[in-house]
Amino acid sequence: MDIDIESDAGDFGVEDYAARMEAAARAAADAGLAGVLIAPGPDLVHLTGYRPADTERLTVLVLAAGQEPVLVVPALEAPDAAEAVGAGALTLREWTDGKNPYAAAAPLLDAGGRFAVSDNTWALHLLGLQRELPATGYVPLTDALPLLRAVKDTRELARLAAAGAAADAAYGEILRVRFAGRRETDVAADLADLLRAHGHSQVDFTVVGSGPNGANPHHEAGDRVIGHGDMVVLDFGGLAHGYGSDISRTVHVGEPTAEEQLVHDLVRRAQQAAFEAVRPGIACQEVDRAAREVIAEAGYGERFIHRTGHGIGVTTHEPPYMVEGEEQPLLPGMCFSIEPGIYLPGRFGVRIEDIVTVTEDGGRRFNHAPRELALVE
Amino acid sequence: MDIDIESDAGDFGVEDYAARMEAAARAAADAGLAGVLIAPGPDLVHLTGYRPADTERLTVLVLAAGQEPVLVVPALEAPDAAEAVGAGALTLREWTDGKNPYAAAAPLLDAGGRFAVSDNTWALHLLGLQRELPATGYVPLTDALPLLRAVKDTRELARLAAAGAAADAAYGEILRVRFAGRRETDVAADLADLLRAHGHSQVDFTVVGSGPNGANPHHEAGDRVIGHGDMVVLDFGGLAHGYGSDISRTVHVGEPTAEEQLVHDLVRRAQQAAFEAVRPGIACQEVDRAAREVIAEAGYGERFIHRTGHGIGVTTHEPPYMVEGEEQPLLPGMCFSIEPGIYLPGRFGVRIEDIVTVTEDGGRRFNHAPRELALVE
Repeated sequence: MDIDIESDAGDFGVEDYAARMEAAARAAADAGLAGVLIAPGPDLVHLTGYRPADTERLTVLVLAAGQEPVLVVPALEAPDAAEAVGAGALTLREWTDGKNPYAAAAPLLDAGGRFAVSDNTWALHLLGLQRELPATGYVPLTDALPLLRAVKDTRELARLAAAGAAADAAYGEILRVRFAGRRETDVAADLADLLRAHGHSQVDFTVVGSGPNGANPHHEAGDRVIGHGDMVVLDFGGLAHGYGSDISRTVHVGEPTAEEQLVHDLVRRAQQAAFEAVRPGIACQEVDRAAREVIAEAGYGERFIHRTGHGIGVTTHEPPYMVEGEEQPLLPGMCFSIEPGIYLPGRFGVRIEDIVTVTEDGGRRFNHAPRELALVE
Repeated sequence: MDIDIESDAGDFGVEDYAARMEAAARAAADAGLAGVLIAPGPDLVHLTGYRPADTERLTVLVLAAGQEPVLVVPALEAPDAAEAVGAGALTLREWTDGKNPYAAAAPLLDAGGRFAVSDNTWALHLLGLQRELPATGYVPLTDALPLLRAVKDTRELARLAAAGAAADAAYGEILRVRFAGRRETDVAADLADLLRAHGHSQVDFTVVGSGPNGANPHHEAGDRVIGHGDMVVLDFGGLAHGYGSDISRTVHVGEPTAEEQLVHDLVRRAQQAAFEAVRPGIACQEVDRAAREVIAEAGYGERFIHRTGHGIGVTTHEPPYMVEGEEQPLLPGMCFSIEPGIYLPGRFGVRIEDIVTVTEDGGRRFNHAPRELALVE
């Protein structure tokens, strides 16, 4: 059953975006920065609700404490920008083709200041600003203000829960389709249809990794025909009501071998151990370690070849990362994946993934689909 | 009639990618640079055939004269990278989650060198390299080596011609669908279907700007119901066989008024004047000026609010730009749009666009669809 977003979460209004922009400017000042420069992409969506394409034409939101937010935009994008919900809380500053856009942005910046910039800001634009204002300095937003989008409010949590429930429902239905004799891409197309049928406006990925393809964690879906006896890694997600889903389950066509069942049980135990490690105050890397320890103890440590998780919000893939070296403490409201895996080259792979949020007293899953090895036909 | 790409253009092989990488490294050396750093995106597609997602995980191709090409990749992406056609002409250097990827890339770079970087390189990665190697310098690729992808070889020209013919065919068929009483988004969906039916693997945009919506050059398609008497700007394109199409025509539902016909004629004359200006050696800005002069002389100069054109190749939107201030001389093999427009706020807009390539003795169009104002129902 889908959650009713409109009643549970409401829409974000101009006052929400104004508050987010003000909080970002204040956080930058607290971090000793002159301000924040936001490029098209998820940061801009979060702060303004505006979703332009990211191109060689400069669009940048300039936030600084004690200064009204200003969005520098190409003149021909200005009508669209003005329609964004957050536009009521900022000033547009247009520049026209043929003019130097960095000169248009420069007067808004402290010429000797240090600024946080969106991670995905184009080098073209960063170098353009550096050239215009040689005494400015820059630091990636996720290094400077790692918590800008990481801690979700209650309406955001409601949207993520709804997206998770929709992905669970899609998983429940994919178990009833035929796997054997069909191509991975056929099952992937089914998954995309199911996500859309359950309220997703955007499908970001539909991984179907059968047999040896499952041993490549970044395999998407190919022409391989799924056969009886295959393990099949499913990993799919996208955006519903603007917030992300991301779930992985590994299924088996027919009865598994003892080894397949053992590897699956091991990944499930690792996923559970990482989930149980979640609580406010522990470092992100502790979540990774909890999963890795279970797998390493069983002798498969070398076969768990990626980090344990990534944040999720207005994208399906963002900070914080559950990875060795990440000392950021978990805070209530953070949301991320827990997705350990084991990959046996040339044979098969297993991955199990839920989205989890941090609460005052531990973790709470947004995915409740059964984690046992499901048998499909 | 679609052009047969396989017989006319052939596939690109490892030797093509090797030659492109070598040419890029040599061009960088000739420009006094230590090398070229290529991020995921069109530059990487052009140089290697590899199309990874662009993420916070560093993927970068390092090219330097007298040095074998090296692609720095996340370990879990390495199997996919190894399957790219161009991978046979480079070495993969993997880094694993939790390690510092910039330290993995640093030994490949001259620590005091100046490098050209892909325009769309994430600031996160550029700042990571700057932090690791503080004495290095960086310049956007399109500033340093503006011709890297700008001049197309004969096989690329054949693909662009085929993409243009496919877009022409889609336009021919859209004239036969019903406009009046349907929403812009319905006609946009028809355009997308037609592009795919004519061999497009990717649809990048399907602008349907009816009545006042046509006066916003970046309007895409909305819920507005098209009415009798509307001018309708159509601007659509995407990728076919890896190369771009992009065409605009403005049509009218029923008979136009005298003013509508006059404005359309004016844009058509401006487009023709810009086309006739094309020849090797003139600056890009001369193409813009030729179109703008016609429109300004008629008193509509203030209503032509964007540049005249942009390059096209493995993307639908790239350098060189036909814009005031761009002094790059045209060279045979360059391909770009010529798309002047007039936008009357609250009323209607007109835009006419063809893709044009530079030949030894002038311009050659890749779009041959009639440019007269077509009447639709």
